[in-house]
Amino acid sequence: MVGAGFAGLTAVRKLARSDIDILVLDRHNYHLFTPLLYQVASALLDPSEIAQPVRSLLRGLPNVGFRLATATGVDLAAKVVMTDRGRLDYDYLILAAGSVSNFFGSLSLERQSYPLKELDQALEIRDRVLGRFEQAQWERDPARRAELLTFVIVGGGPTGVEYAGALSELVRLVLRRDCRDLDPGDARIVLVEGGDRLLATFPADLSKYALRTLEKRAIEVWLGTLAKSADEHGLDLSDGRRIESRTIVWSAGVRAGRLSRGLGPAGPGGTVKVLPTLQLAGHPEAFVIGDMADVEAGGGHLPMLAAVAMQEAESAARSIRALVRGGQPTPFRYRDKGIMATIGRNAGVAQIGGLHLRGFVGWLAWLGVHLLLILSLRSKFLVLVNWSWDYFFYDRPVRFILGAGGSASAERAPPTDDG
Amino acid sequence: MVGAGFAGLTAVRKLARSDIDILVLDRHNYHLFTPLLYQVASALLDPSEIAQPVRSLLRGLPNVGFRLATATGVDLAAKVVMTDRGRLDYDYLILAAGSVSNFFGSLSLERQSYPLKELDQALEIRDRVLGRFEQAQWERDPARRAELLTFVIVGGGPTGVEYAGALSELVRLVLRRDCRDLDPGDARIVLVEGGDRLLATFPADLSKYALRTLEKRAIEVWLGTLAKSADEHGLDLSDGRRIESRTIVWSAGVRAGRLSRGLGPAGPGGTVKVLPTLQLAGHPEAFVIGDMADVEAGGGHLPMLAAVAMQEAESAARSIRALVRGGQPTPFRYRDKGIMATIGRNAGVAQIGGLHLRGFVGWLAWLGVHLLLILSLRSKFLVLVNWSWDYFFYDRPVRFILGAGGSASAERAPPTDDG
Repeated sequence: MVGAGFAGLTAVRKLARSDIDILVLDRHNYHLFTPLLYQVASALLDPSEIAQPVRSLLRGLPNVGFRLATATGVDLAAKVVMTDRGRLDYDYLILAAGSVSNFFGSLSLERQSYPLKELDQALEIRDRVLGRFEQAQWERDPARRAELLTFVIVGGGPTGVEYAGALSELVRLVLRRDCRDLDPGDARIVLVEGGDRLLATFPADLSKYALRTLEKRAIEVWLGTLAKSADEHGLDLSDGRRIESRTIVWSAGVRAGRLSRGLGPAGPGGTVKVLPTLQLAGHPEAFVIGDMADVEAGGGHLPMLAAVAMQEAESAARSIRALVRGGQPTPFRYRDKGIMATIGRNAGVAQIGGLHLRGFVGWLAWLGVHLLLILSLRSKFLVLVNWSWDYFFYDRPVRFILGAGGSASAERAPPTDDG
Repeated sequence: MVGAGFAGLTAVRKLARSDIDILVLDRHNYHLFTPLLYQVASALLDPSEIAQPVRSLLRGLPNVGFRLATATGVDLAAKVVMTDRGRLDYDYLILAAGSVSNFFGSLSLERQSYPLKELDQALEIRDRVLGRFEQAQWERDPARRAELLTFVIVGGGPTGVEYAGALSELVRLVLRRDCRDLDPGDARIVLVEGGDRLLATFPADLSKYALRTLEKRAIEVWLGTLAKSADEHGLDLSDGRRIESRTIVWSAGVRAGRLSRGLGPAGPGGTVKVLPTLQLAGHPEAFVIGDMADVEAGGGHLPMLAAVAMQEAESAARSIRALVRGGQPTPFRYRDKGIMATIGRNAGVAQIGGLHLRGFVGWLAWLGVHLLLILSLRSKFLVLVNWSWDYFFYDRPVRFILGAGGSASAERAPPTDDG
């Protein structure tokens, strides 16, 4: 089992309490509840509220072990997973190593922007944004001050929209009260999206609602605009325009990581094409699920979503149980349970079957579902405390600059993306 | 006002709501509740539970501003504070920039050990300790495994004793359950102290109790032993012995930071000698308080303690209020309210006047006082939740490896101590 994300942990649970010995491998020692990552980036939640040590999640399961290591390759013929710390043999393999940020080949975008995909990245974005406000207080030149206080978010999918909404609240509700020397109009948030609407996977009426809501909250939304390249002082766009900004948050897309290369025919975004049973062709003992897998359904490719990954995990686990007993794997069928996103205080969108929710109702639905999904009782409780605190007191308690964001000189280290 | 620690913030509160304009300068944007720092290092608390944004603490005070910057020097003649981001003029100055770890001139100790003094250092220690257990699971050579699972704490003052107790609990209660492949006897904690007893500032009977309690909790305490030098694989001691260990936590002492140099005659540990009124000789407008100041009282030097710093801050603030009105500064008098330390679950020591508390009662006293002292209601509540969770479930929820501790290859960056 490679990966302790939604796919990996779901598969482990379905295989637990059997006579199969399971070893989980991940490059982090925690499982990350990615849907709330943007709330760490916007200084609302602490890491421990959306991450849980994998070992505590596995503690009650006597047939499951864990190893911290980065998988570097798979030898399908020898049935070995290579890692940076050693080799691991397997009888059955579930590859669920997830995805990495996709910069579409632009090195300058990769170098200059802050991807919002991993826990340490969310903390870095939090540090940087708060640090820009501190820097701006020292800056007397209006152009440079504007550059420091302009925040660009690239990508109008759920992550970009949710972070834009949360950042707008952080800026309007909190930082303006904190930084009385700054003019409220100084800070500017621009959301850049290549397509002609936000939340492209949602119904059109919900996309429109999201656009209207963000614009009402003083976020500039530039549709039909692609990021072309970036330097230390700004972002160049496909239509020739340029935004002077020191802070570019990247949520424009993901692709499967390097591990998927060479495992079989490639699907879109670096994925691996799998059989309808999620097995690799010619290797019935190897399953690929989650963001790494290219699964076709209903004439299209299934999106990289936690819900897809978890259903694939259940299917793969069921098939492995069958194979161990000498049976046959079953083909995977996806049941669409709906999608949702939040745009900020009292505003959310959700599509559940034919039902389209928006506004306060959509927001409540989002809150309820995410609170239910958070794995531990402790986290549920702490998240609820923080959400209530924020809602009633308009405060963001986790406003620390822990990393380099507070330093006057140092700029960021070069990217260390594993893709 | 340079510094937003216990001294700085206390002085600000005493000067707030006056017609004095106050600017607070700190190199962090948060105030750190240092007495609980060891609980972050032992994976019990999240940063936001012991740190608070300075700006939210100052929000209600209209005459107080904040700047994030590192003070690099003071020009007493020109009345200017130099920082890495610009210069700031002052009429009155309170210097309360605190202390830094003291390695007593040993570069190898500075390079190889992990000081426990700042928030990012506590997070790094947490990452490293958890990372060692993960590395040990991959290691087959018994000697190297022992090296990975040996944790040395240098310095038997309150920080060293409290962290040793907390680490022992982390190891015994949590990690042994997490890492079933490891033999419980593999992990070893050694506390090295140069003097002939732990907690040298406490009464002798409480020192003895602390020693007994730590030894009962399987911590080896080596008294009368100084750290001499260190390399990647271990620590060499003054008596010729050596401990093979990859993780050396440094709590052997602090000294005033670089800022205190050249401000006046030096006291012990890089401090500045001040007048009885806490002013610098020849500069009645400049006060030095907290860990930076050398204040003599009762024939000795006052220790670097939060309680001392806060009382000095009150005195300096009172004097500045008087000076502004054309009055005279008042000499500082320290009132000893007692000292306390915790050694772990159900075990604490406290001296309050002639009263010596130990064991469960000392522990309860410690809990109560520290819960009262934590600044915000939100933090009090979250800390209480985490403490209860730990107490009843024997769990440490914040077991994440966020930094380099999880990586197989990278070792730590060179130290960037500002002293």
